[in-house]
Parts: sequence; structure tokens; C-alpha cells
Amino acid sequence: MSYNSFGHLFRVMTWGESHGPALGCVIDGCPPGITFTREEVQRFLDKRRPGQSKLTTQRQEPDQVEILSGVMPDDETPEKLTTTGTPISMMIRNTDQRSKDYSEIRNRYRPGHADYAYDLKYGIRDYRGGGRSSARETAARVAAGAVARKIVPHLRVRGAMVQMGTKKIDRTRWNWDAVDTNPLFCPDPDVVEEWTEYLNALRKDGNSVGAVIEIVAEGIPAGIGAPVYAKLDQEVASHLMSINAVKGVEIGNGFEAAEITGVENADEMRMGNDGSVRFMSNHAGGVLGGIATGQPLVARFAVKPTSSILTPRKSVTAEGKDVDVVTKGRHDPCVGIRAVPIGEAMVACAVADHYLMHRGQTGRVEKEY
Amino acid sequence: MSYNSFGHLFRVMTWGESHGPALGCVIDGCPPGITFTREEVQRFLDKRRPGQSKLTTQRQEPDQVEILSGVMPDDETPEKLTTTGTPISMMIRNTDQRSKDYSEIRNRYRPGHADYAYDLKYGIRDYRGGGRSSARETAARVAAGAVARKIVPHLRVRGAMVQMGTKKIDRTRWNWDAVDTNPLFCPDPDVVEEWTEYLNALRKDGNSVGAVIEIVAEGIPAGIGAPVYAKLDQEVASHLMSINAVKGVEIGNGFEAAEITGVENADEMRMGNDGSVRFMSNHAGGVLGGIATGQPLVARFAVKPTSSILTPRKSVTAEGKDVDVVTKGRHDPCVGIRAVPIGEAMVACAVADHYLMHRGQTGRVEKEY
Amino acid sequence: MSYNSFGHLFRVMTWGESHGPALGCVIDGCPPGITFTREEVQRFLDKRRPGQSKLTTQRQEPDQVEILSGVMPDDETPEKLTTTGTPISMMIRNTDQRSKDYSEIRNRYRPGHADYAYDLKYGIRDYRGGGRSSARETAARVAAGAVARKIVPHLRVRGAMVQMGTKKIDRTRWNWDAVDTNPLFCPDPDVVEEWTEYLNALRKDGNSVGAVIEIVAEGIPAGIGAPVYAKLDQEVASHLMSINAVKGVEIGNGFEAAEITGVENADEMRMGNDGSVRFMSNHAGGVLGGIATGQPLVARFAVKPTSSILTPRKSVTAEGKDVDVVTKGRHDPCVGIRAVPIGEAMVACAVADHYLMHRGQTGRVEKEY
Amino acid sequence: MSYNSFGHLFRVMTWGESHGPALGCVIDGCPPGITFTREEVQRFLDKRRPGQSKLTTQRQEPDQVEILSGVMPDDETPEKLTTTGTPISMMIRNTDQRSKDYSEIRNRYRPGHADYAYDLKYGIRDYRGGGRSSARETAARVAAGAVARKIVPHLRVRGAMVQMGTKKIDRTRWNWDAVDTNPLFCPDPDVVEEWTEYLNALRKDGNSVGAVIEIVAEGIPAGIGAPVYAKLDQEVASHLMSINAVKGVEIGNGFEAAEITGVENADEMRMGNDGSVRFMSNHAGGVLGGIATGQPLVARFAVKPTSSILTPRKSVTAEGKDVDVVTKGRHDPCVGIRAVPIGEAMVACAVADHYLMHRGQTGRVEKEY
Repeated sequence: MSYNSFGHLFRVMTWGESHGPALGCVIDGCPPGITFTREEVQRFLDKRRPGQSKLTTQRQEPDQVEILSGVMPDDETPEKLTTTGTPISMMIRNTDQRSKDYSEIRNRYRPGHADYAYDLKYGIRDYRGGGRSSARETAARVAAGAVARKIVPHLRVRGAMVQMGTKKIDRTRWNWDAVDTNPLFCPDPDVVEEWTEYLNALRKDGNSVGAVIEIVAEGIPAGIGAPVYAKLDQEVASHLMSINAVKGVEIGNGFEAAEITGVENADEMRMGNDGSVRFMSNHAGGVLGGIATGQPLVARFAVKPTSSILTPRKSVTAEGKDVDVVTKGRHDPCVGIRAVPIGEAMVACAVADHYLMHRGQTGRVEKEY
Repeated sequence: MSYNSFGHLFRVMTWGESHGPALGCVIDGCPPGITFTREEVQRFLDKRRPGQSKLTTQRQEPDQVEILSGVMPDDETPEKLTTTGTPISMMIRNTDQRSKDYSEIRNRYRPGHADYAYDLKYGIRDYRGGGRSSARETAARVAAGAVARKIVPHLRVRGAMVQMGTKKIDRTRWNWDAVDTNPLFCPDPDVVEEWTEYLNALRKDGNSVGAVIEIVAEGIPAGIGAPVYAKLDQEVASHLMSINAVKGVEIGNGFEAAEITGVENADEMRMGNDGSVRFMSNHAGGVLGGIATGQPLVARFAVKPTSSILTPRKSVTAEGKDVDVVTKGRHDPCVGIRAVPIGEAMVACAVADHYLMHRGQTGRVEKEY
Repeated sequence: MSYNSFGHLFRVMTWGESHGPALGCVIDGCPPGITFTREEVQRFLDKRRPGQSKLTTQRQEPDQVEILSGVMPDDETPEKLTTTGTPISMMIRNTDQRSKDYSEIRNRYRPGHADYAYDLKYGIRDYRGGGRSSARETAARVAAGAVARKIVPHLRVRGAMVQMGTKKIDRTRWNWDAVDTNPLFCPDPDVVEEWTEYLNALRKDGNSVGAVIEIVAEGIPAGIGAPVYAKLDQEVASHLMSINAVKGVEIGNGFEAAEITGVENADEMRMGNDGSVRFMSNHAGGVLGGIATGQPLVARFAVKPTSSILTPRKSVTAEGKDVDVVTKGRHDPCVGIRAVPIGEAMVACAVADHYLMHRGQTGRVEKEY
Repeated sequence: MSYNSFGHLFRVMTWGESHGPALGCVIDGCPPGITFTREEVQRFLDKRRPGQSKLTTQRQEPDQVEILSGVMPDDETPEKLTTTGTPISMMIRNTDQRSKDYSEIRNRYRPGHADYAYDLKYGIRDYRGGGRSSARETAARVAAGAVARKIVPHLRVRGAMVQMGTKKIDRTRWNWDAVDTNPLFCPDPDVVEEWTEYLNALRKDGNSVGAVIEIVAEGIPAGIGAPVYAKLDQEVASHLMSINAVKGVEIGNGFEAAEITGVENADEMRMGNDGSVRFMSNHAGGVLGGIATGQPLVARFAVKPTSSILTPRKSVTAEGKDVDVVTKGRHDPCVGIRAVPIGEAMVACAVADHYLMHRGQTGRVEKEY
């Protein structure tokens, strides 16, 4: 029911504004006995952290996470934390707030931003850096996702940028190992240089561009999910749509499914030599009727170009005057890049939640997990 | 938390299997004082009802809705019902069940269907007509949507099929009046004949095809929605993704947003002569930061081709034997057609729910509503 | 979030008015593979059913339950139903509606009833038999409880009337076997005759009286529950408070706990010969810190005297005139009697729900269950 | 669905352990435009704060609240905060943790405490000061309640201790002004000295005692509440039952209702001279059929005696050995005292939540609010 939380049994509530003292999340419903370290959480936050290359905002935020509750440190190795089953509160202090940057837009609605909508809704708005609508909120998601990844044994969730503007990767060159070695999180190493130049040119030009991110989750136990309104694919889509600037989501072959026939689209099955079922394709993206089949879950989402650009755009003021708006401040020319770890986190949370729900309703737990 | 309900304040729970005695929905949280007739609900059900042309399944279901609770009939005009604020239970009896049709697939997993996933999840499955996974469940959604449409003054939600297979409409010929005059719910009357022939050929060939549906909701009060995890666009996307066979959802320009620059994507604003804000485009699809801007909400969703086809596909049995499956029974060659009223209903429910949530949290009610 | 449902993973929504065509419930989240018969549900409904003795309302309702979804009949023994994990919809038709009885109170607020409050809330009210506020709604709870009892192995939930007016049972004579052999569900057979005469005298006098009901649930697996806001005892209390006319709830020694010292109140523990923990008393009522200890859960609730009485009481009309109200119709002189099976059902639902939640979050499943 | 939150539209999640770095709450769904100061929140925390007299624990916690999000400081009076409609995160650092005090009970189950139940549930337990089960968690509730009080115009929620052990106040001497002038929050000033001596004697004797607290909420708009499962009185009862050590709850005349007849129990009504309805008594405690009538809401709850006592009690160790347990550390001889501001906070939260729900569903807003 909540406006600022998601999940059923693995429930995450986030809080905090871009330019307030801090932001954070509380995870409620984490199983007891999960072990992790603060550094493991930090590693994912670092991946999302701004200021790491010219291709992302120059805001310098260390984004150091504090873990405030819900864990017991190990007696001998205190950095090793074990969840106790109680709420895990994690907090990140804001340090590099330059609220001054925003005084100019206090009464000006930035096109493509939530400014205008906020004023209509609440009649009051924290204009500093977008307030609650800032993508800084997503740091809290990434922290929650770091814990979520620990819950389902053998789960691996990875993401990559597969399209920037009209440029698409060559999928035959897909290389997961390359993803973490380039600042674009691109799985096709051959395009990185070209895309980087393209993005730098846009940035210098006061412009920005959109992107498509693909998330692949392997190791999802077959059977988790739900058949009608808490479908696993629906919830993955919903979670991804909740990320700032996302305008579209696909599962499996997605919009391509609209273009093909039933004969082509069928993921045929055969018994494998080991006595388990083999799918001969994965158009479904790992989900049938809302329930995981054991194939990799594949989701893609479209991120719109950053609305904060240096090119003037027509807008209005809160007082109803026409005005041209230039969004200074420090912004990403392609917010899609940093959306990669965020998308991973959201998928991990959806899977962990459904894992617990499935265990709750059915008690069916395969030997492997 | 529920697996079979959706919504926050306007909450809908559905129940029922394809080949059980009945199916239905219960609406909880409907405001009191909303007036409607059974016939108004029936009209939307008739639109979704099977057996109306050769292009949809030949199953003959009258789909007559009974309204069992939550309303007071008018003393003088008893067909006029007024909601009392208590749960509205609506039921539709199943009449044309031919369970025999399904005995053959009792132990065979139809590719593309939920059969295999159900057995993995529950260890038991109502194999008759897909059970709970049958698209018959969507009749309950359409009934709920008929009530939802009444809640927000001036709300108009309309849908149309804009793509079938690789064939797309010419948007310059868009004609809402045409939608209800052709069995494809297609807004481009010039393509109807060609598409119909194409679909008939596929059907005779034992094949099927996918489609893209577009839903447009006008009259949404600006300000409804939520900024982070119950975003209006997120919930529209989630609701649409919960419809059977849907593999992708877009809001506004959707995946196109990934391809263009920030300069192009900005929906610029100017003050209108009447003192209200005018948007010069609607790439955003009526939502910014999860909150309605007052522009039309535009959503599209991709429906995969019907998996029930007469062409044999490779599969396995529950006992682990390889088998070829042909899905007899009565099926739609393009389930996207009947998805049009379903999509409308889901969007109407999402909007009604957010209207009540906004009124609850903010108490901000514009004069018009 | 819903106004007409309860539970987390085992979620029950009820619907229906006293004088509408039917009432019912939908259970969402029931585990698959639970077997039961319609007759087993009916047996509990019969226990709650009106018209069985002079001590309860003379309204004659067969209260026959129809099971509309969520189950598969056994191939060979079709009355044996197995849950499939999908929503279980159960419906009871109203048959003995005498709406005429109520025309007189259409505009008169019966003291102690929800009439006045409903008009303030909704501005519209189904005045026939109390509408949604009628205790007929509790039939739906009893049906849901019949399924809930099946979910937790070894669970036994029993209730009894322990006080009527100022008359209390002698607890040393407590005899569970006696409960079902007297129309008062009283566990002290020695008082039944006296209480019956007392109640008959009140009834003839146009009066009514309150009661206290005790529910004991044995076989609850230790460890289920939650420590802060979904405490097992809290939810039992909440569920019982939701029953019509309930004004107070106690767990364990309840209000007596306020009167004694910590030395007296401690439930001391010792290791039993079998290596398991033995409690030497059960002041706590089976719950510590919101979590079940394995001792019997003990709850009591106070039911106020029926507000529908033949003695005139001062009131007002909807138009704001003073009036004296006599509530004709068919009413129970002590609604506490029929509250016994209702209280049992609500406790069974709370326990089943927490059993699933515990399994979901912790995966800890003792060998016994 | 969450284990650590409560409320529907005004939703509060709390987190934190007794001996971790901090504890706190996040309020989600607070209306925008509510103004308050940190000092106003602090004032309620100070009332609950330990260490203020010999009658409460000697743990010294400043309990200084930090407000981390969801508010905008006023430009000119920065201590004046206005809610923005986004989550309000409040945190209280723990400072006086003496974890050493607890090493002794690490493997010993304190009778009456959640220790044993936690181990059964989670298999791991933060034994320091009771961890999550410590009453320190209630500081977060009090902070949330301070905001909740601001939401409903004219709402006034006050509490008092009306019974300690077997000693009861004389209700004819009830004096609200006296409540804040004595350390017992007792409304009968004539008994304070005697009760204080009694409690001191118990404390010195290594013992403790229970209490009954009464909460009265005035200014609740008639019509808020819900008729079946989110009843206003049910939710007040549920919220109060969630407070540590509470074993029973009553609304209005509570268990007394079981003892009297319908003739006696009826709250008769008459039209007042000002044209509004007057109730001639308030046995109902301000709620009929789950909906507020406009009369004061009256609730009472029973608090058991502190289980942490210096008198040895029989228990067992985690390893299954018999042991006698003495709970050292710093404890309240009567936890009922500090339960007064906690009870007030919980009732304020329930009322604020229902106020928003009523506004959402019905849009019915009386002129006064």
C-alpha cells in the first residue's frame, strides 16, 4: 500500500532526498542467517556511484553505506554480518550537496522532470536537486539489492547496456567479462570506443541520449512466481519501470513477440540426457504464466535521455510565465549507464521476494535450494 | 500481498478457473454513491466475449454478469444501482465448458503455456482449459474496469490494436470511431480487410500471430500518481504486464525514448491563452516522475501469438517423455484482439485507484472533480 | 490495505450483505495439495447457523456453501477436493430475507448499531438487516476458517462460552466434550440449565446480555509469529476484535496480568525428561514477544449484549427527530453464543497465515510439520 | 504485509535494536503541508525517555531525534519544518549501551521474555538488551505519533495510568491536568504518593508489577473507520496489542459489556439544541460498527509486570540445561508507566491513518476539517 516501498515478503522501503542530510532503505522480511559484509554492499554502490568517469555526473559522493540494524557481527570476524530476521536499516549520508546550483530552478519547471507534476500533486516541492525524484534515491535500491542477491542460492543477476541512442551492440560478440571493464557496462567491447566518443560529443554539445539495458538472472529456481497478479515477469517489469527515466520494459523477446507467429514463438521442449527438461529456445525469457521455468530470466528496459541538459528548452514558471530553462548542475549525459546496477538490484529484489513467497505458500523446496 | 488482487484503495480480487462453475471478482474500496447499471458492465463484457467473429475463439459463453453485493437498487428504477462503499461481488457462470477437449493434454505440457510451470510450482494443476491461467480470468477484470471507469469524473479510456504481426497502422489515419466498427478494434479502417485476410489465413494454417495494443486515457486529473514505487506509469505497466501473453509495455514514446536525444525528447511547455499550461508534445505519455501531468496517458503493450495452435510442437509429458503437442480446442488466432477491452479495464482500474490515493494523502481536489 | 480482507499470505476477503442475494469469501494464498470436503466446511457453518434453538435468532437460513473455484475434485471420489493454490471462492445464498421487517428502521438509527455511523461515513446505507454490518457476514469467516484449520498439521482450535452476563463457569469443571452437547457451547455442564433459563427470561423480557468466549489453539508450531507489528497475539486480538459486537480481547491471563507481580507472572521453564522444554504455567497464553512458544494459545473476547432488543430505546431519525426505537425482526438474545465458531475460525486463520509467513521468511520447518 | 510496519495510507515502519548503533522509523504517506518542529517530536520522546525518575529504568538515553528526510525547513524560521509528502525518516542514536550487562544471559532464556521464542523462530538472536524486542523500539513509535497528531485537525489524544497492580484510581477524581505533574502519569492525584511507595518497595524487593492504561482521543471526525476488517476500534486494539508486554485491550466499556444487558448497554441518542446528535452515554467508546461516531474514543490496555526482575526464576539454557535466571541490567519496575506516551502515539497513528483512508474512499470532508 505504501508509496515508497516494494515487495511482499522481502519488503524494501526507501527514504531520502537528493539534498537532505541522508538517504537510505529499510529491508523488512529478510531471512535470518544470511551473511554478508558492508564491503559487499559498498561494491555495488561504487558501481552506481557518480563521478567515476566523464560519462557520468561529476557530483562527488562517496556513498558510504552504514548498516544500522538487523545484523549481528561475528564474534571473531566482526566485519562478517549475519542477518537476524529483523529490519536491516542502511543509510548513506549526502556530502556533496550544492543546493545553490538549484536556486535558479526553484520556480522554473524543468521539461521532462517531475517539477511541474510535484507542484500539482503536493503543492510543495523540494526543488533542490529534484528532491525525492532525484536518481540518488536509487543508491538505496542498490544497497537493498546487494542483500537480496544473497537470499536465493545460485542466483546470479547481471546487466549490460545493449543500446545507446540508435547504436546497438552486436549480440554475437556478447562478452560478460567485458561489461565491468568499460565505463558503459557494454558487453560488446568493439563498440565501446565509438559509443564513448559519441557520448562525449553529446555531452559537450549540452545534449544527452537514451539507452536500453538488459538484465539476465540465472539460477532462479523453477516454480517461483505467481499466476495472475503477482506474476514474476510482471513484478520484474514493475520494479524496472519504477526506476527514474524508464519508459518501456520487455520480458524475453518482448515487442518482437508481437511480430512473429505462434509456430515461431513456441519454446519447444525435449527431455535432456540427464532426465531434466531442456528448452530449445527462450523467447519467453524464463517465465511462463508468471512462473519461473528455470531458464534465465531476461528483461530489457528503455531509459530516456537525461532531461537535465544545457540546451535551452521552453518551459513555464510556477507563477505562470513563459521561460527558457537550461539545467546547470552536474548531470549524466546518459543516465542509462548507471541504470545497469540499479536494474540488477531491482531484479534481484523481485526474485528474492518471490523465492520467499513460493516457500511460504507451497513449502516446495527443491533439494538444491 | 495477495497473489490474485491488485490496487491499493480501489482493490480488485479475481477468482475462478476456465472450466469451473464460475469466475468473478470482488471490488473492495469503491467509493459510495457511484451509480451504474448491470447493462453497462455487460456491454464491456460483450466486447471481450468470445465467439463473436471467426477471428476469436468459437467457445460460446454468454458471460452474463451477476452483481451480488455492494449496491442498492434505486427504489423507482431498480436497474439503477448505487454503490454503498462495501465490496462489490460480481460473478460470471461458465456454461460452455468442454472439459473433454482437454483430457488429451492432461499430462502434456503445451509449449508457451503455463502447464509446465504450474506443475513445478504447485505439484497439482487444473489442466482443463488452462485452469486459472486461462484468459477467461480477464472477464473479471473487464467487469471491475467497468466500475472503475465511473469513479474519476471525465475519465475516458480507449484502446485499439495498432500492430498485428509486422503490419502496423498508419497513425495519420487514426480514427477512434472506426475502432468499434471492426472486429479487430483497429483505428485505421484502411487496413482492416487486409489484416482480416491475413489472420484468417494464419488460422486456417493452424498458426497464430502477435499484436500491439495502445491504450489512451484522457481526463486524468493532474497530480494523481506517486513519485517512487507506486508511480502511475509503473502501475499501468504492471497492470498491463499481468494480462495473459503480454511480453512488453511502453509508456509514451517508450523504447523510442532510448533512441533520441534530450533535446528531441523534451516535452516543452508554454502558457496557454487561458492561463493554463500547454505541453507542445507528449513523449512522456502523460506522466512525469510517476505523476499525471494532465496530458493523455498513453501506453502500449505487446501480446505474443497464441500458444494454442494446431501445428505440432515439440514438448514433453509430465512423466518425462518426449511428445509432439497439437492444441485442439477453440482458440483465438490473435489473442491481441480481445486484449483491447482488457487493457482498457486495467488502465481504468489503475487510474481510479490513484485518484482515491491522491485524494486520501493530499486532500487536494480540484474544482472539476 | 483492503477494508474487507485480512491476512498476509493466507488472505481472506469477504463480501455480501444480510439481505442481498448472497454472501461469500475468497481465500487467496491457500497452499496447494490441501484436501477437504464441502461437508467439512458445512459442518462449521451449521454450528454458526441461526435458528437452531430458541436461544438464537429464528431466521431460517440453510447456509449451504458452494465452492466455486480453487479446488480439483478427486477423479474417483469427487466430493474430496484438493486445493490447487489458486483462489478458493465460496458462496452462500441468502434465502430467508424478510426485508419488510426493516422498512420501519430505514430512517431510524438503532442505538448500539452501525446505522448512524454508516450514514455519516458513506451518506448511503443498506438498511435491510444491517447490510454489510450484519453478523451474517461471519458465515464467510467460518467457511474460510474451515479451510484454514487444514493447513497447519496437528492444529486444533476450540472455543467455549465461559461467561454470560455476570455468570461465570467454574473452570475446575471444564469439559471440552460438553461444549458441543449444549446450545450455549458452555464447557461447564453444571451451569447450562441455569444459564438457559436466565437467557430465556431475558429474551421474553425483550432484553439481551453479553458474554465472554475463550478460544484455545493447540498444536501451533513454536516459532511462528513475528516480533513487532505482526505479532501472533496482536493478530489474534485484531481478528477477534473485528467480529461484530466484540469490545475487548485478552491473551493468556490478560487483564489479570496488570494485577500481579513479575515474580507471580513468570512462566518458569524446566527441561522435560524427553529433552524438550516444559513451561510450568501459561500466563503468557502461548506467545512471547509475538512468537508462539509451543504452549496452547489462549485468547478471550468480550461480546456486548445484542443491541437489537424489543425494549424501546431513545434515538433519532435520519431527519433529526427524536424517536423511540424498538428493534423487531429475529435476533439472538446473546450473540456471544454464535460467536464461538466465529472466534475459532478467526484464530485458525491467524495461525495458518503465520505458519505460511514463518515458512516463507525462515524456511525453518520442524520435522513434525 | 510487512512484519515491522503498520498503517494503510499513513504507514510507519520501524527498525533498530536496543544495543545497535541507532533505531528509527520511516513514515510513508504523510500528507504534504503539515508543519511541525523537531522540538515537538522531542517533547513526546522525552515523556517516554528512560532515566527520569527512580520509577523507570536508570539507562540514560538522551533519545535525541534526527529528522533525515521528508521535510522542507522554512526559509526564515528553519526550525519550522513542512512535510513534502515524501517519506519522513527519523533516527535516534543509542548511546548508553552496556552490552556487557547481557553477556550473562546470552545463552539463558529469561522467563517472560522473547529470548526462547526468538531462538525457535530465527535460530539466531541479538541477545543484547532484548535486541529488536526491547521496548526501546517504542521510541520510534512515539516519534511517528508526534507527526500523526498533526494530521487530523482538532485531534487530542491523551493517556493515563488508571490501575497499578490491584490498585485502581477513583474515576470521580479524574484530573487530566494532574497527569503530567506526576511520574506515574496518574489522573488521580490522591493516589500518587501511595502508588509510588508501593512501586518503590517492589523495586527494592527485586520485583515488578502490571498496570492498566487508558487512552482517550477527542476530536475524531465522525465517519472515519471501516465496517468489517479495518474497523477503527479493531485497529486501535491491534496497535495497542503490538506494544511490548500488553496482554489485553478494551474499547469503551470493554469486558464490562459482557456483564450487562442490552437495555443497560444502549447508548441512547437525542437531538441536541444545536441540531446535532447527542449521545446520552458512551459505552461504545466512540465507535459503532467500526466507524467513529464523534464521541471520544476510549481504549484501555493491560500491561504485564516487567519480566526483568532480580528475583531468581527457573529457566533453561540454549543448550538445554536447567538454570535459575536473575535479570540484572537497568529495568522499569512497572513498564506500564512509560507505556502511556506509547499508547497515545499508537492511537494517534491509527486515527490519522483512518482519516486519510476515509478521505480517499469517500471524499467526504466535513467543513471543520
